[in-house]
Amino acid sequence: MLYPTDAEKLAIAAEEARLGGDEGGIPIGAALFTADGRLLGRGHNRRVQDGDASMHAETNAFRNAGRQRSYRDTVMVTTLSPCWYCSGLVRQFGIGRVIVGDDLTFRGGQEWLAENGVEVTVVNDPLLIERMRAFTEANPDLWNEDIGED
Amino acid sequence: MLYPTDAEKLAIAAEEARLGGDEGGIPIGAALFTADGRLLGRGHNRRVQDGDASMHAETNAFRNAGRQRSYRDTVMVTTLSPCWYCSGLVRQFGIGRVIVGDDLTFRGGQEWLAENGVEVTVVNDPLLIERMRAFTEANPDLWNEDIGED
Repeated sequence: MLYPTDAEKLAIAAEEARLGGDEGGIPIGAALFTADGRLLGRGHNRRVQDGDASMHAETNAFRNAGRQRSYRDTVMVTTLSPCWYCSGLVRQFGIGRVIVGDDLTFRGGQEWLAENGVEVTVVNDPLLIERMRAFTEANPDLWNEDIGED
Repeated sequence: MLYPTDAEKLAIAAEEARLGGDEGGIPIGAALFTADGRLLGRGHNRRVQDGDASMHAETNAFRNAGRQRSYRDTVMVTTLSPCWYCSGLVRQFGIGRVIVGDDLTFRGGQEWLAENGVEVTVVNDPLLIERMRAFTEANPDLWNEDIGED
């Protein structure tokens, strides 16, 4: 099965975000695809579920993709603009493209990525923005913990 | 038990690097301490052992430290200069200080961290440099995979 369009790719990340929220976790989802839309790995933030501060949505999707020899032709889709940690992941491993579902609730290193040759597409899906805003407003302590804000 | 000096902190990271190498993995180790030298978490690269591309030494030490409310007064010690992924981790979570065992074999985002207010101390320990050089020369494919070089 292929997910050729940006909307289809983002729908997988959005489903992961919903799963994470349903588990009582931080509702951010991500997925890594090949350029032609084959799913390599999908995942969501696991701070609450696993007590694991290292598992942001993007790092979880990256992990679940397993070892890959090259990321040049891969696409990372995430419901929320990647923080510096996840932006660093994209840059170090040379992921070629990032699709961002929402860069209004939070914005990390996406401009830095674009300056360094990553193709960045911002969707700003109203439903994703609404869900994430509702979450951050209802859970400010958990949200600040997840982005390292004192 | 406290590890107040930089040398004591780096010795823990070096021990982790040795453990990783003994397991057949990439011999990079790291540890996260409080500023006064209490060990919060230690770890090593787990790409080979767990098939986990997301577990660099620094991310593994960070994970093993568990959820922390603030990283402002913590110190990340690593045997090798942090790549962009691990530098992004340091920046996002506001880790205050990084001690680097070797920045000659590889150099990631340490200067970017220093420009952004992180205190960076480079030790360049001859034994660590020698071990890492020997590893990268003997295992170029594995090493390039770990830093996302095609």
